[in-house]
Amino acid sequence: MPLPRLSRYLPILSWARTYDRDTATSDLVAAVIVTIMLIPQSLAYALLAGLPAEMGLYASILPLVAYALFGTSRALAVGPVAVVSLMTATAIGQLGLSEPADIALAAVTLAFISGVFLALLGVLKLGFLANFLSHPVIAGFITASGVLIAASQLKHILGIDAGGHTLVELVISIGEHIGETNLITLVIGIGATAFLFWVRKGLKPLLLKAGLNRRLADVLAKAGPVAAVVVTTLLAWGFGLDERGVKLVGEVPTGLPPLSAPSFDLSMWQTLLLPAILISVIGFVESVSVAQTLAAKRRQRIDPDQELIGLGASNVASAVSGGFPVTGGFSRSVVNFDAGAETPAAGAFTAVGIGLATLVLTPLLFFLPKATLAATIIVAVLSLVDFSILKKTWVYSKVDFTAVTATIVLTLLVGVEIGVSAGVLLSIFLHLYKTSKPHVAEVGLVPGTHHFRNINRHDVETLDGVLTLRVDESLYFVNARFLEDLVLERVAKCERLEHVVLMFPAVNEVDMSALETLEELNRRLAEQDITLHLTEVKGPVMDRLKRSHFLQDLSGEVFLSQYDAWCALKPGAAEGSERERVAAQ
Amino acid sequence: MPLPRLSRYLPILSWARTYDRDTATSDLVAAVIVTIMLIPQSLAYALLAGLPAEMGLYASILPLVAYALFGTSRALAVGPVAVVSLMTATAIGQLGLSEPADIALAAVTLAFISGVFLALLGVLKLGFLANFLSHPVIAGFITASGVLIAASQLKHILGIDAGGHTLVELVISIGEHIGETNLITLVIGIGATAFLFWVRKGLKPLLLKAGLNRRLADVLAKAGPVAAVVVTTLLAWGFGLDERGVKLVGEVPTGLPPLSAPSFDLSMWQTLLLPAILISVIGFVESVSVAQTLAAKRRQRIDPDQELIGLGASNVASAVSGGFPVTGGFSRSVVNFDAGAETPAAGAFTAVGIGLATLVLTPLLFFLPKATLAATIIVAVLSLVDFSILKKTWVYSKVDFTAVTATIVLTLLVGVEIGVSAGVLLSIFLHLYKTSKPHVAEVGLVPGTHHFRNINRHDVETLDGVLTLRVDESLYFVNARFLEDLVLERVAKCERLEHVVLMFPAVNEVDMSALETLEELNRRLAEQDITLHLTEVKGPVMDRLKRSHFLQDLSGEVFLSQYDAWCALKPGAAEGSERERVAAQ
Repeated sequence: MPLPRLSRYLPILSWARTYDRDTATSDLVAAVIVTIMLIPQSLAYALLAGLPAEMGLYASILPLVAYALFGTSRALAVGPVAVVSLMTATAIGQLGLSEPADIALAAVTLAFISGVFLALLGVLKLGFLANFLSHPVIAGFITASGVLIAASQLKHILGIDAGGHTLVELVISIGEHIGETNLITLVIGIGATAFLFWVRKGLKPLLLKAGLNRRLADVLAKAGPVAAVVVTTLLAWGFGLDERGVKLVGEVPTGLPPLSAPSFDLSMWQTLLLPAILISVIGFVESVSVAQTLAAKRRQRIDPDQELIGLGASNVASAVSGGFPVTGGFSRSVVNFDAGAETPAAGAFTAVGIGLATLVLTPLLFFLPKATLAATIIVAVLSLVDFSILKKTWVYSKVDFTAVTATIVLTLLVGVEIGVSAGVLLSIFLHLYKTSKPHVAEVGLVPGTHHFRNINRHDVETLDGVLTLRVDESLYFVNARFLEDLVLERVAKCERLEHVVLMFPAVNEVDMSALETLEELNRRLAEQDITLHLTEVKGPVMDRLKRSHFLQDLSGEVFLSQYDAWCALKPGAAEGSERERVAAQ
Repeated sequence: MPLPRLSRYLPILSWARTYDRDTATSDLVAAVIVTIMLIPQSLAYALLAGLPAEMGLYASILPLVAYALFGTSRALAVGPVAVVSLMTATAIGQLGLSEPADIALAAVTLAFISGVFLALLGVLKLGFLANFLSHPVIAGFITASGVLIAASQLKHILGIDAGGHTLVELVISIGEHIGETNLITLVIGIGATAFLFWVRKGLKPLLLKAGLNRRLADVLAKAGPVAAVVVTTLLAWGFGLDERGVKLVGEVPTGLPPLSAPSFDLSMWQTLLLPAILISVIGFVESVSVAQTLAAKRRQRIDPDQELIGLGASNVASAVSGGFPVTGGFSRSVVNFDAGAETPAAGAFTAVGIGLATLVLTPLLFFLPKATLAATIIVAVLSLVDFSILKKTWVYSKVDFTAVTATIVLTLLVGVEIGVSAGVLLSIFLHLYKTSKPHVAEVGLVPGTHHFRNINRHDVETLDGVLTLRVDESLYFVNARFLEDLVLERVAKCERLEHVVLMFPAVNEVDMSALETLEELNRRLAEQDITLHLTEVKGPVMDRLKRSHFLQDLSGEVFLSQYDAWCALKPGAAEGSERERVAAQ
């Protein structure tokens, strides 16, 4: 049966067979709405990425078709998105290029590397690597990126030349050039921003109140950016605003995307490799989380490894058609879903819409003020900014708070790449650090039960001459030595100690380093005539211990439950009679 | 009380106050024996590090005094050691220097950076970072280094010019030059090696049989290398072997170490920084593990953070007196301990011995064949080589086996720095990977007890309509999504399910990402009219959950013990009457 294998890599084979007219209609409606959103967004994100406007359109055609073939999400809308566009700008900025053709080539190459990397991860089924980004780190990174993106667009609102890839650089550069502000541009920029905020918050309730049905009100509210584009373009054309210093999009070539090929220049690859990997990972995480959320609402499932292949194919498609890195965006995907998209075909229909736009609309874009595009970006990204993650993590976990704070601060002050890398590494390090000094509780019997709890938290009974410690962590190289020191220290504080019982219900692993430590501990305690027992050792850990000499050398016993140990070590318990050696369990 | 604070950083203050004649005698005897070992070793390790012989002597004077002032181990013998010398050669090799003065300056600089780094870690109390090197990785690294060191000395045994920093490079280079082998050198080299092996294995039993007392037999056995040095030097002098192509140590300046200062050239620091960090960490791990082993034998303790300061001071002392990186060596420390050293003063006495050697013995070293030194190195390091760690880890844990294999292979084939770095990173990654797919067991009641175990391993009772899962891992960002998927998958397989109970005795942490996943799981189960309960949630985890909304939103309850949950969910249990909400525990 070759078909199931093929449909694993080509999910289209599974949904296309049952595709019918009703589904097509739903997909088509969704596609129209997404196209209306995507035209200004694609132009704006190209601007954000430091690329010519048409590249935004090119990145919104073939990549959508590629995802429709290879993707598993029924509602994901692929294309240029804000955070990835910002990271693209940063990555290309590192090359220090000035020729527009070189910059475009770098963007295409970045998309290519990113696409190949994503597809490779997918084929190797390494999608789980995205889990190494914790939720707070992602939330912090998105928030900081939103602030950075908004700040980077201020120059277009003011109509000045300014630059920089960090918040400080941006603020200083804007400060230096603020005297050159073009007032007409500023009016257009602020007007468009205010209008778009109003559309987002105030228009829909108004339309509903006026008696429009919900779907139409939705569509009209989504068309806000298009209205802003049309009105400001007409103003610029009517009043000849380009002659009054208002910066316009200018000439945009008409026609479908050209064929393009990435550069294979080694030094360019060396510079772009790490940024491409970060762009891939961030893009994948954003995309897969929205895809998963939407799939869950309809009780569907997505396959993260196949998603990697889908996004990889999209980026390779972007690279061969003059685009730049793309991924599944949050806002357009939600709109696509709400508008009723049922299959990835909706994405293909959107691609047709954008294709038509490149054939028909491009001459009209000449008079579009850049300030309008900046306004659409600012309004879009400010909805991503949510500092509440700081408060949430502060209350819940200082470790998470530290990671998210570092991510936000470093992203804003040093840059997106350092910010997200530091967040990931710090959260891993802090996790390991926490496990390096595990919580160890002395426990006793909760009266009337067979249950043992911390003597400091619960009113429990203990036995004379017996120290029972519950080890609240897997034992591995990072904390092996710590446990040995801690047990010996506690033992040194007790008088007339005969037994040490280590309760292992929370020990999910005992690696080679920890095994050596346990052997050493057993030996050191035996020297002091103290017997070492283990209780509640889990099956997988026990299986492993049986492969070593430890169980033979252990001075005491391994009890199935802590209560068994209690009964056996209780004064008066007949030596050995109640003890059950469970080495054979 | 300024004294306790000062004595924290100057441990000498605590032992010097009770220093008496008996202790001095013990220390002196040990110092004499260690000096006899150290003279040939220090020359040999300088050769291994690619440095002039006198630098080995210089690295064995002031550093020992510095450690005596700042170190906490009573028996550690500081000075040049094999692995650190090899790493020094590799690090300096990267600078591509040819002038002897430049090479010496680089060695001094490396010792300085390493010393400052170690002292800094000590002051910041970051000694625990050494725990990130697992035992198998260290064992594998030492073994591979031993092989590499022995291979690097073959050229001296053969009397040829050959080079290289990896096993392949060394073998190829020796192969190319093997035709140039000097037969007299080869005879001396093989003779010295065979003699030293015999001294190590066969001499002591012979001496004991001859009626010598144990201590004298020990001293004579340790003096083997000195005998080899004396005999081969006499041979070289008597037969004028230098004129027959035997390479000799040559001119060694007479006199105490010169004052020296590290270079502060930025590009040299950039190249040496990472090697210096690796040398520091490896040196510290080797040193602290032997110090800990020896301290435990006399029921003493060492302070790892103060050890960092002691070793840091030693390396800075080495840098200002024309030496190279040093650490506490395994073999000399054991000898020092066995010979009766009671305080770090033994090290200071050894320093005096080596100081005398620089004043008196250096002219005699002119005729010492390099092949003899190479023989002492080979015999010393082959005792470090122990491939049994491969077998041990293979049997016990494939994860540890993978890490140790990677360390050995990469150290031999790519180099010491890549080898040990890869070992550390791989062991951390594999640990995280293992926790990313935690073991989750369905459990039931062991009849006649209050204890719950895996239904696949034990004969247990379960309740209809209740799925009880024991989660065998802390929940954090790396495995949060995995748990959600796994629980929903198991739930999908059950019919008429009413309750899901998650048993948390092994959950030592629930971070922000995992909390969000639990909230999502609670919501998704509620949609299917399934109640989610938690049991045996540990105190620290419960404290944290109480700071979130999760406990309010939870559809079910948190039971103190799994048995409580069993009683409450058992058919016939009066709804609510037996249930105890333990949110207030």
